[in-house]
Amino acid sequence: MDSIVLNPIGIIRTPHKSLEGTPIQPCGACGILGTVEVEEAFREGLLDLKGFSHLFLLYLFHQSKGFNLTVKPFLDDARHGVFSTRAPRRPNPIGLSVVRLVEVREGTLHVEGVDMVDGTPLLDIKPFIPDFDLPCGEIWTGWLSGRSKNATSLKADNRFL
Amino acid sequence: MDSIVLNPIGIIRTPHKSLEGTPIQPCGACGILGTVEVEEAFREGLLDLKGFSHLFLLYLFHQSKGFNLTVKPFLDDARHGVFSTRAPRRPNPIGLSVVRLVEVREGTLHVEGVDMVDGTPLLDIKPFIPDFDLPCGEIWTGWLSGRSKNATSLKADNRFL
Repeated sequence: MDSIVLNPIGIIRTPHKSLEGTPIQPCGACGILGTVEVEEAFREGLLDLKGFSHLFLLYLFHQSKGFNLTVKPFLDDARHGVFSTRAPRRPNPIGLSVVRLVEVREGTLHVEGVDMVDGTPLLDIKPFIPDFDLPCGEIWTGWLSGRSKNATSLKADNRFL
Repeated sequence: MDSIVLNPIGIIRTPHKSLEGTPIQPCGACGILGTVEVEEAFREGLLDLKGFSHLFLLYLFHQSKGFNLTVKPFLDDARHGVFSTRAPRRPNPIGLSVVRLVEVREGTLHVEGVDMVDGTPLLDIKPFIPDFDLPCGEIWTGWLSGRSKNATSLKADNRFL
């Protein structure tokens, strides 16, 4: 299959200046504010976004180089397949976070719950829609069962640089 | 900012052979089964995935060429900014769907709720984790309020080819 070329549409600004110490998920970034600065050429695409309370941000894990197919994630001492983790060193290093939209001011989104390093390249913004994005039926979470709540307090170290 | 080159890690097989008539969201594909065929080089990364009930699939909207910053989406007659929609003709045409994992058999995931066209290039697989991915607080959905449930029955037409 052919390669795909993407171009960032903006940049995510956060208080997290290095990977070490950055929250590992939005639930660990409760109350932490950041901004999403959308390039001028794409700002018309933000029309009507302010009606939504939460957004998916898709972004590049720009500090992670290369990947491993099994990784020791932040939340366990055992190795797991990278696709059963949210670790950043992935074959296609795309990050996904649900953040709360506080305000849209011109081309800048003010958001809460930022778990990205400052300067992260933005790839896409999608509105979070419960009817589209909430799974039906019972949910189970494999090796993360009983561990995922620890993401509210655990911070990143440098293992995925 | 620099361009990013991604390479598909597999292909998504579904019963939807053309965009026209394809469900527009997973909630419109309830009970519809598909497979995610992961390339052999990446299969080790599937280790432990079978413990999870639901996955995010990230994929390329490969049939959509170019983009518009405002679009008339399937669920409304009015135009909206593309980032306040889930329309496929986006600046970076990455699709996102939550599907139910039925079975992992060697390099093939059997999944339910497929709303992609057959042959869609797969970019990433992430486990769905309620503690990470469910927004806190009240959720509102702007122009989609009162309309998003229509995605359970509405099918795509060719407007985004």
